Amino acid sequence: MTPEHDDQPARRTYSYLGPAGTFTEAALAQVPEARDQIWRSVRNVGEALADVVDGRSDAAMIAIENSVDGGVSTAQDALATMPGLRIVGEYLVPVNFVLVARPGTRIEDVSLIAAHPVAYAQCLQWLLKTLPEHAHLPAASNVAAAVGLIDGVSDADAAIAPPGILEHHDLELLASDIGDNEHAVTRFVLVSRTVAPPSPTGADKTSLIAELPDDHPGALLELLEQFSTRGINLSLIESRPIGDALGRYRFVIDADGHVADERMADALMGVRRFSPKVLFLGSYPRADRAIVRYPQRYSDDVFVEARDWLRALISGEPEA
Amino acid sequence: MTPEHDDQPARRTYSYLGPAGTFTEAALAQVPEARDQIWRSVRNVGEALADVVDGRSDAAMIAIENSVDGGVSTAQDALATMPGLRIVGEYLVPVNFVLVARPGTRIEDVSLIAAHPVAYAQCLQWLLKTLPEHAHLPAASNVAAAVGLIDGVSDADAAIAPPGILEHHDLELLASDIGDNEHAVTRFVLVSRTVAPPSPTGADKTSLIAELPDDHPGALLELLEQFSTRGINLSLIESRPIGDALGRYRFVIDADGHVADERMADALMGVRRFSPKVLFLGSYPRADRAIVRYPQRYSDDVFVEARDWLRALISGEPEA
Amino acid sequence: MTPEHDDQPARRTYSYLGPAGTFTEAALAQVPEARDQIWRSVRNVGEALADVVDGRSDAAMIAIENSVDGGVSTAQDALATMPGLRIVGEYLVPVNFVLVARPGTRIEDVSLIAAHPVAYAQCLQWLLKTLPEHAHLPAASNVAAAVGLIDGVSDADAAIAPPGILEHHDLELLASDIGDNEHAVTRFVLVSRTVAPPSPTGADKTSLIAELPDDHPGALLELLEQFSTRGINLSLIESRPIGDALGRYRFVIDADGHVADERMADALMGVRRFSPKVLFLGSYPRADRAIVRYPQRYSDDVFVEARDWLRALISGEPEA
Amino acid sequence: MTPEHDDQPARRTYSYLGPAGTFTEAALAQVPEARDQIWRSVRNVGEALADVVDGRSDAAMIAIENSVDGGVSTAQDALATMPGLRIVGEYLVPVNFVLVARPGTRIEDVSLIAAHPVAYAQCLQWLLKTLPEHAHLPAASNVAAAVGLIDGVSDADAAIAPPGILEHHDLELLASDIGDNEHAVTRFVLVSRTVAPPSPTGADKTSLIAELPDDHPGALLELLEQFSTRGINLSLIESRPIGDALGRYRFVIDADGHVADERMADALMGVRRFSPKVLFLGSYPRADRAIVRYPQRYSDDVFVEARDWLRALISGEPEA
Repeated sequence: MTPEHDDQPARRTYSYLGPAGTFTEAALAQVPEARDQIWRSVRNVGEALADVVDGRSDAAMIAIENSVDGGVSTAQDALATMPGLRIVGEYLVPVNFVLVARPGTRIEDVSLIAAHPVAYAQCLQWLLKTLPEHAHLPAASNVAAAVGLIDGVSDADAAIAPPGILEHHDLELLASDIGDNEHAVTRFVLVSRTVAPPSPTGADKTSLIAELPDDHPGALLELLEQFSTRGINLSLIESRPIGDALGRYRFVIDADGHVADERMADALMGVRRFSPKVLFLGSYPRADRAIVRYPQRYSDDVFVEARDWLRALISGEPEA
Repeated sequence: MTPEHDDQPARRTYSYLGPAGTFTEAALAQVPEARDQIWRSVRNVGEALADVVDGRSDAAMIAIENSVDGGVSTAQDALATMPGLRIVGEYLVPVNFVLVARPGTRIEDVSLIAAHPVAYAQCLQWLLKTLPEHAHLPAASNVAAAVGLIDGVSDADAAIAPPGILEHHDLELLASDIGDNEHAVTRFVLVSRTVAPPSPTGADKTSLIAELPDDHPGALLELLEQFSTRGINLSLIESRPIGDALGRYRFVIDADGHVADERMADALMGVRRFSPKVLFLGSYPRADRAIVRYPQRYSDDVFVEARDWLRALISGEPEA
Repeated sequence: MTPEHDDQPARRTYSYLGPAGTFTEAALAQVPEARDQIWRSVRNVGEALADVVDGRSDAAMIAIENSVDGGVSTAQDALATMPGLRIVGEYLVPVNFVLVARPGTRIEDVSLIAAHPVAYAQCLQWLLKTLPEHAHLPAASNVAAAVGLIDGVSDADAAIAPPGILEHHDLELLASDIGDNEHAVTRFVLVSRTVAPPSPTGADKTSLIAELPDDHPGALLELLEQFSTRGINLSLIESRPIGDALGRYRFVIDADGHVADERMADALMGVRRFSPKVLFLGSYPRADRAIVRYPQRYSDDVFVEARDWLRALISGEPEA
Repeated sequence: MTPEHDDQPARRTYSYLGPAGTFTEAALAQVPEARDQIWRSVRNVGEALADVVDGRSDAAMIAIENSVDGGVSTAQDALATMPGLRIVGEYLVPVNFVLVARPGTRIEDVSLIAAHPVAYAQCLQWLLKTLPEHAHLPAASNVAAAVGLIDGVSDADAAIAPPGILEHHDLELLASDIGDNEHAVTRFVLVSRTVAPPSPTGADKTSLIAELPDDHPGALLELLEQFSTRGINLSLIESRPIGDALGRYRFVIDADGHVADERMADALMGVRRFSPKVLFLGSYPRADRAIVRYPQRYSDDVFVEARDWLRALISGEPEA
């Protein structure tokens, strides 16, 4: 970390799950504002978010969902329980894997495979087919799984790793493209302290986490209706246990649109009135820049007109 | 009608379906502000409402629903199609009927029965049991049905009338208490030009008429959900044909609560956004003065709190 | 009425609201099976239905809905309270009206107008515009209104009647085409004793009357969902007071489709489970012969397949 | 494993995630039928289920949900994609953890912690508070995490393990009761080949996995309504990515009740008609033996009565 000089603007700090070479680092490389700033490699998502809360970093890049393995539970739970955070951007990183081993290893000798659990899940079909009796040795990161083979600290026979690993380490390639889905992608979010949401772009997403009022039949229905009755599509709905008892969940939701949209603001107020605990995580541009489509009857002007109509009838003006 | 002197306040005029002795007159007698004012007897509901629209009257009392016969279609349709009106009060009149005839008539001789259609419907079970082969001669009002027997303008054998008729006319009582339901009641509303709604009392009712966007399965569902999802009970829901084709309806709705209630204002805006045509008829005290009960989660403060919450999160303030 | 001979098949009897010349008679004329049978003119809908219940008639033709005035309340209420009946056919009669008077009458002299209430409602806009200060003298039928002028039993100045009246009676035509809607039509149903429904034609309608379990917000919603969640469109939904108290309704429903359709049978069972009182009035061909359209996912084979699937999984068979 | 003699019944084989000492083994110990049978320790959930499919085992015990960490994704995904399986029982194992290390280690020296990912998630709050800068080295099982410290194959400084580990291995106890929730519990299911469901007990659960027809607003709503409109409570609802694209999910559902209950059979057929792909995983006794409560209106006799009613009205019998 170079010292900061008075005549230079202070550099910003970004925390991410390291080491260099992880998919998280690739996500951070997509952030123009992060170029030439300080990148702080940390070892778990809690540490990354704590950096932001405590002011050690300006923002943290964390993996939040994978197209094959689903929501990243630890990230979702950390966001749900650490106050003062806001998602400000979303990034997608294509995911591809190779199986590597120490030089001289043959694939038929492989029994114990080191892999980060998310990577493991994404290659599970291939593994069950190719190496049906393998065992899994979870690793802390995709890079660590492979490096451990060389360091001798791991007794795994092979490791699942990103293809780029071969450029930096003396490893034997046993198989490539072993991911179960060639379109697999991991979704990352950039998290800052609580700030006003960035301006709407027309291609935005709103994230929130809400608890249900109680366990009666239909409570989840009522939560979802807050969105469907305003023409809002949900791109993500995940349950996560609140943790105090089996059967008690909070729901992680990504909704199409921005809190500056009338229909979204109205839906969020509906959720707030309904839910005993709701956390707004942010409105931010979608990584895919896809414009949000919605029925015309839910456009801003329809909401504005209805408000004007209500105001007029309360005041006793004759209806137009 | 006494002349107005300069030093007296101008008297107000109230239109009602006459002549003297009708249930409508009894409803008007319940209005304290109408005492010692000008009562204008008219001959149909359209005339009564036109009096108000054109300024000949300050208000009109009209029958809107009967506990046995249901909504009064002509009144509902007139309200739906005459702009510039507002319901400002509701009144209930208990309904009871007698069967009367010219002196000397015996009940076994009765074949043709004069009756206002609403009165007829309310005595139908008794008639089908007692005089199964009778025919019905509709009359213009409950009073006219009986008076016609004496005037000789009607060839009816008997008439259905309010009990008080016997005090004013020389008629024979053939049967009393012939209404099918001893708790029968007719509901009247007092209609003025468009004004600001009277202040909420906690025991209020809101009336509106709304059309559905189109004939797809579920459009009515969506209309009703605007109320149920805000904890609002409906005390009346009636379909009336729009009139341009079979199967096209507008809906006459009475909802518990006042437009000054946050949940009702929110529901009305929801209806406005949804419906191609909605007419707000007014918020006014219920005749039965029954306090409106609703789940605590729909109280005003919950709506206010949700608005404050939304405002804070848009501005980027940390959540409390 | 000719005597029946032993070597001829017994003739059937049809009751209808007479006298000859009513729209009801025109509806009955549309029934091929009624040709050359006995037509029994009665004086009210209760009498017509009682004829069927008591075996005096094989069927009764009754008006059930008008495109301008809505449901015919007395007919709906009679069907709701007289057990043992079934609708077996539906017929449409275009409705058109003239204003007639005794010869020599001028329209500017008309003050009191005789009219059947349904006819009156269908000409109300024209009357309010042309004769704003008229009074209404309800008549027992469209024919009776006009005939009363000649008989001298009515003190009305003019009558609303079907155009054909001029062919049979010496009346002056004051105005023609006075109905408010040139496409106005009245819907009639043919009612027999309880029988198995006629075979489905693909263009069928199912009628029922259901009460709601209690007055909680959303009970009507739940009733309607029984249809919408099976892709069934409702062509009629009317509330009628049960009659025991204000605010208590039963609902008259016409649904597109036949009880022999899987989705309709399923919906009816759903209504039966939900409603404290439901009356099936029949499945019968629609008057307009319009084929019922519905989403493919609600077709019979989808229901059959689901039943087979359930049976297999209960028996422990491996899934296909 | 003792040899099988001809005069003895063949012993059954149960697969479970080993080695001895895991929570999965504790779950299997709760199965009376598994006593004195063959227990087959395997190394991943795919292998356990493949044992059942291929006939190497009669049943497999697998962890399916944890009260703190939520659904076990790999187990859910394996059940979703491997046909021919059925859940036949559910078991709960209380979860408690200790932090152990090689003798002589002090807690302030701990930097790298070996732990199975589910165990890690359950101790995360404690770790973030006590050892905020730790790194996580995922392990294949709770037992393996601890054993690796002694074997020297792991370079972790400490391991999270079940308390019983101290009885079998020479390890130093650094901290006990480190789980974030003292009521934490893991839910296991016993999986066999497809068989008829065990008889209902009144305290049953039904598991299924369903995909949504498409990504329109409200598709999930419609799925959930299949249960709520039959009075069925859901104790689990989890989304899992189908894996072909971001935003495409299948839903893992546990519903209160048994497929032999009329309401559940009806709901399952509703789901089958709605969903492009639904997998019934079984109906089986709940681990907590809690009797399922539901509104009386959804009881079996109500369904039976509705079917009888429908049958009668189709046949043309008069209504009772």
